Amino acid sequence: MFIKSSLEDFVEVLSSKEPVPGGGGAAALAGALGNALGGMVCNLTIGKEKYKDVEPEVKDILEKTRELQRKLLLLVDEDAEVFKEVAAAYKLPKNTEEEKQKKKEALNRALKNACQVPLKIMEYSLEALKLQKRLAEIGSKLAISDVGVGALLLKAAVHGGKLNVLINLGGIDDREFVENTGKYVEKICKEADALADEAYDEVLKKL
Amino acid sequence: MFIKSSLEDFVEVLSSKEPVPGGGGAAALAGALGNALGGMVCNLTIGKEKYKDVEPEVKDILEKTRELQRKLLLLVDEDAEVFKEVAAAYKLPKNTEEEKQKKKEALNRALKNACQVPLKIMEYSLEALKLQKRLAEIGSKLAISDVGVGALLLKAAVHGGKLNVLINLGGIDDREFVENTGKYVEKICKEADALADEAYDEVLKKL
Repeated sequence: MFIKSSLEDFVEVLSSKEPVPGGGGAAALAGALGNALGGMVCNLTIGKEKYKDVEPEVKDILEKTRELQRKLLLLVDEDAEVFKEVAAAYKLPKNTEEEKQKKKEALNRALKNACQVPLKIMEYSLEALKLQKRLAEIGSKLAISDVGVGALLLKAAVHGGKLNVLINLGGIDDREFVENTGKYVEKICKEADALADEAYDEVLKKL
Repeated sequence: MFIKSSLEDFVEVLSSKEPVPGGGGAAALAGALGNALGGMVCNLTIGKEKYKDVEPEVKDILEKTRELQRKLLLLVDEDAEVFKEVAAAYKLPKNTEEEKQKKKEALNRALKNACQVPLKIMEYSLEALKLQKRLAEIGSKLAISDVGVGALLLKAAVHGGKLNVLINLGGIDDREFVENTGKYVEKICKEADALADEAYDEVLKKL
């Protein structure tokens, strides 16, 4: 499991020619890092007299970042798992018509499945961005730059997820799936961009 | 040293109220991850017949990503070190005029010093972005989404570095330093944004 590797080992294997981890795992980790910064801002806001009025809401946000943290981290490893299925499907023989057909089906199935992980990276990072946006408004000003970095990393995670969905869609024959997934991805990106940019502007104003 | 921690432990301590790691360390790690994806793309391009013509250039890029990888990872820990100095300066007593003066000087010195780490995050991530931009043009198309994720993470690292410089500048009295550093930061961001956006567009075209 990659989430047990040290930062330096993970970066090293990421830079290698090993098929996993790749951009999907890196995007999931970026999402986990961005979301964790949101959790940190909650922890630095809770218990401070100045922020007493917003404390219940910040505690609620903290709870949500805890859930997202676990989910996003798990995706680092899940991305590697689904990629292995895709790689296995690419290696199937295609000597006969029957083999060709079987390979095509296995590949389509594996690629559709592989889309689910970056889609989850996008969905969870979008959820985390909603929390980050709110923290830009009500979180401790002492940690305002951390909210900003969190928003930047989550935005990168959303778009990184998108690129990983798109590269998988490129090999899928099911037109309806490709079209619907493509639309869904754009919808998440649009929402995430607006949230991230608003959070970032709020941070710059307070710096 | 944080770079020896596991991904899950690092994310956990990042989300805690511990003063370090914070947004600076997360930005440095994002830069290291983005740059590592560039290294991966080089490794997946080298030795492939289709990319024989560009192999010498890709090998040169790989060499540069190796250097940047080490430098960016070290900044994760350096950011924590310089932050400790800032925190120590904030804790100095200020009961007498002399103590006030001493504290002010110590704080200014620590904050100026603390600016250097996010400035390096920005500089190294900008260097890595130049390589990523070139890889979007000449790297293996099989790993094109990884180039894109790399560019996104490096752009986030540059802007994350900027926010960490700005929060430090806010506490520094030396007007000339503040003004010059502010201008330098904007210059790097402008160059990085152009490179990252060009690389990203190139990736989308090839997906």
